Amino acid sequence: MVPVSSQDNPTPADVFRAAAGDSQVTEVFVAACSHAREVALLATVDSLLQWDEQTMLPAAAGDFRAEQAAAMAALVHARRTDKAHGERLQQLAESELATSGSPAVRATIRLFHEDFKKQSRVPGRLVEALARTAIEAQQAWSRGLAEADWNLLAPYLESMFALKRELAGCQRPDLDPYDALLDDYEPGADSRSIQERFARLRAAIVPLVQACGAASTRPSDAVLRGDFPLSAQQEFVKMIAAAIGFDFHRGRLDTTVHPFCSTLGPHDCRLTTRWDEHFLPTALFSVLHEAGHGLYEQGLSADWFGLPPGEAASLGIHESQSRLWENLVGRSASFWEWCFPAASAAFPTALAEASPSDLAAAVLTVQPSFIRVEADEVTYNLHVMLRFDLERAVIKGELSVADLPGAWDERFAADFGQRPPTPAQGVMQDIHWPAGLIGYFPTYTLGNLFSAQIMAAAETSLADLPAQIGRGEFRPLLDWLRQEVHATGRTLTSDQLVTQVSGEAVNERYLIESLYRRYGPVHGLSDKPPAS
Amino acid sequence: MVPVSSQDNPTPADVFRAAAGDSQVTEVFVAACSHAREVALLATVDSLLQWDEQTMLPAAAGDFRAEQAAAMAALVHARRTDKAHGERLQQLAESELATSGSPAVRATIRLFHEDFKKQSRVPGRLVEALARTAIEAQQAWSRGLAEADWNLLAPYLESMFALKRELAGCQRPDLDPYDALLDDYEPGADSRSIQERFARLRAAIVPLVQACGAASTRPSDAVLRGDFPLSAQQEFVKMIAAAIGFDFHRGRLDTTVHPFCSTLGPHDCRLTTRWDEHFLPTALFSVLHEAGHGLYEQGLSADWFGLPPGEAASLGIHESQSRLWENLVGRSASFWEWCFPAASAAFPTALAEASPSDLAAAVLTVQPSFIRVEADEVTYNLHVMLRFDLERAVIKGELSVADLPGAWDERFAADFGQRPPTPAQGVMQDIHWPAGLIGYFPTYTLGNLFSAQIMAAAETSLADLPAQIGRGEFRPLLDWLRQEVHATGRTLTSDQLVTQVSGEAVNERYLIESLYRRYGPVHGLSDKPPAS
Repeated sequence: MVPVSSQDNPTPADVFRAAAGDSQVTEVFVAACSHAREVALLATVDSLLQWDEQTMLPAAAGDFRAEQAAAMAALVHARRTDKAHGERLQQLAESELATSGSPAVRATIRLFHEDFKKQSRVPGRLVEALARTAIEAQQAWSRGLAEADWNLLAPYLESMFALKRELAGCQRPDLDPYDALLDDYEPGADSRSIQERFARLRAAIVPLVQACGAASTRPSDAVLRGDFPLSAQQEFVKMIAAAIGFDFHRGRLDTTVHPFCSTLGPHDCRLTTRWDEHFLPTALFSVLHEAGHGLYEQGLSADWFGLPPGEAASLGIHESQSRLWENLVGRSASFWEWCFPAASAAFPTALAEASPSDLAAAVLTVQPSFIRVEADEVTYNLHVMLRFDLERAVIKGELSVADLPGAWDERFAADFGQRPPTPAQGVMQDIHWPAGLIGYFPTYTLGNLFSAQIMAAAETSLADLPAQIGRGEFRPLLDWLRQEVHATGRTLTSDQLVTQVSGEAVNERYLIESLYRRYGPVHGLSDKPPAS
Repeated sequence: MVPVSSQDNPTPADVFRAAAGDSQVTEVFVAACSHAREVALLATVDSLLQWDEQTMLPAAAGDFRAEQAAAMAALVHARRTDKAHGERLQQLAESELATSGSPAVRATIRLFHEDFKKQSRVPGRLVEALARTAIEAQQAWSRGLAEADWNLLAPYLESMFALKRELAGCQRPDLDPYDALLDDYEPGADSRSIQERFARLRAAIVPLVQACGAASTRPSDAVLRGDFPLSAQQEFVKMIAAAIGFDFHRGRLDTTVHPFCSTLGPHDCRLTTRWDEHFLPTALFSVLHEAGHGLYEQGLSADWFGLPPGEAASLGIHESQSRLWENLVGRSASFWEWCFPAASAAFPTALAEASPSDLAAAVLTVQPSFIRVEADEVTYNLHVMLRFDLERAVIKGELSVADLPGAWDERFAADFGQRPPTPAQGVMQDIHWPAGLIGYFPTYTLGNLFSAQIMAAAETSLADLPAQIGRGEFRPLLDWLRQEVHATGRTLTSDQLVTQVSGEAVNERYLIESLYRRYGPVHGLSDKPPAS
């Protein structure tokens, strides 16, 4: 699929004008949308600086890159909070279009106005302090992590938590500070209901982890350890990403240290991965995960790029798409039925003795790990809950940054039975806090919850889904996701969207059932959770 | 060499303040320099957009990238012509610092002021029209080139020449329009003296080309055609670039269609090349050429990045550095003495029968070509002179764009004895005119002239130079270039710099002698030009 040149398409202004229809404020709406699109354009330039930093930047160029990124961030904030733009938004919010426009137009006007009020309450000084501290804290984190020295990081983390608390008070003085931060990543979510969901999920996962650990039958990933030459892996995972629908005319795949997916324009979505020549899952599942994010980005409306109808609903919904492809597709027996011939052709030596069912079982090992990003699907959410509880306690003032390492180790020992040997394998492992991403962690587990509930709805709609996957026919699933999940952009909250897609309020039972169904039998356990 | 973090260095403002010393306008100077550095910072963001476009951009992302680049160009122009900045520059120009400061400070104040006046005379409308037309014309050029259809390009070229004529009148109403354009690339140069230099050079080159063509002894490049596997080439040329001094901690090498060198920051210089698996010189000489540009960029003052003392003197001087390494080093017998063992180790099959002198002769073939970028060193300047004469005639109004193809073919036939079979091999081959780079071509031949005169001075200073090159000791030459050529940045014009370096005004005899010395003997001719 090669998209046609925009010269053959209507201009963005044409699209905005047609959406508003004939109203008294149509041209105001067009101006507001055009301004927002220009802000998005500049924001993608900043994203290119970040992508390049993580994939291409020469070793000595880090300091100047930080200056470039800070300059662009300041520029984007200034444009975003432009006074004339605010006046247009006020006029739109009070217009008939705000109530009688199409759902997309109404949501755009409402979200423009909310975003503007929220962002305008943040002084430029705080934006710059956050940008500067994030850069300094991440550099301190890199140094501290290399030496496993908490004291190198701690003072920067003190500043960062203090600044984020200040930001929370500015952005949403009406909300609990943690909820105000959460709102940046999961609009409309509140920490109380997340706590309740997490508690119910935890109650089901802990016994499953224990049962898997104690099982006499346990899958082994030995077959996935061996000689997997880099060049063969590169071709193999690109083939997989393209097969599930990632469009390489509108994106690419590169190498990095901490894999991510970045969008630099409506037709420019970039996946990254890392490689392990002796363990296939490292790159394979990271590419399935990032390609899942990429399919969502490529499924959003290009016409409304950077505006609510063309933006992701939330990080939780984003993660639901990555997890759906990584875990619910990629760790299924049907996927390995389809994938097996290509895998054995790509790695004839390492997989000489393997069968499709060997591989399907090998990707279902459960093995507690100190490191979140290496965790299996079952224990993963325990890592997230730990971080969610600790960061909430720090923001609330119930836990000091100085006490974080002790609290971490204690909680980890309670959940996993061991204490991390060094802070590098414990409290310091993630870049999120030094980067200022506080309130971000719970969206990972929300994504897992959403993914299972969305996949269950897909299985109901597409009666033949596992068989389709077994034949490598991913298009029906992708088309269904595009229509049901991607098409509404940010016009619904994550809870509204999941409810609309599945016909039921968000319910953690879908994830619990999915875990038991897939992990139970390979561990000699029931495929269903115990009746509660 | 890994530069230390800027945290251990003085800030840019400290550097500017120290340079100005104790004067009444020191803080004005610091503010002006800081503003200029911020403009340079934003300009490098634009450069990243361009570099990424040429190396990484997904196929479908071109239109949005054009929008991003246009937005950044407009932003940079607005900052560059900021009124408050202009007032500071006026104050500095009238201050004691403008006459009593150090040479670097005086040149900075003078050039800031000249640049500002020149740029401020250009209306934003014209900047945007030029940016938009350049993008459209380059897209039309790509399509037209693929179909060898001049009519697809012609109307865009009409607009571009008209806009550039308008730009010339705005920027430098005091100059002949062509000289006004030339001033953007070769400050201080004038087309009359370039014509005179070119005429003298031409008078020496034409007989040499004819003599080489008629020679009974002629070198052959057959040994460089064969099986040169990509991965071995990649390692080999990176080794060569590093050996001559290119610092990969402060740069990188990537693949592109039309090789270039781009600077994205004081410690971020990126080379590009293309590859031919069956012809080693394509990548080797393109990397030597671009690494020559890169060595200049890496040799400029990082403290004064983006300001006159840290900027390139001119495109001609830039090209002198690329040509010096590509031709005067890379096509010398001593270079191949050093390089031979590494080359045979990298390409054991293709070079099984070769000797160092075979390779040294093979890179000195002279073979007229329709295409400038494929031309040998001897005929190359005839390609440049043709373009210089034609573009000058169009700007002067003596030749219409419609008549360009005919004039091209006629001139080419006169110089090379054949007419190009299609416009793709003639008037349409270069991206320069559609990109708006009019007045740029002569800098290529100026670079060749400068390179020979600079190299002659280096040979005088470094008595042992060929022997050093034969041992792979490139550091003395690079250090000499850094001190003599790179250190003064843009504070001298190209003619002033070459005169200072060589102790003699620019003289084309150095290039003529260099060509005869290297190309004469392998063609069974004298190693000296005929006495004129």
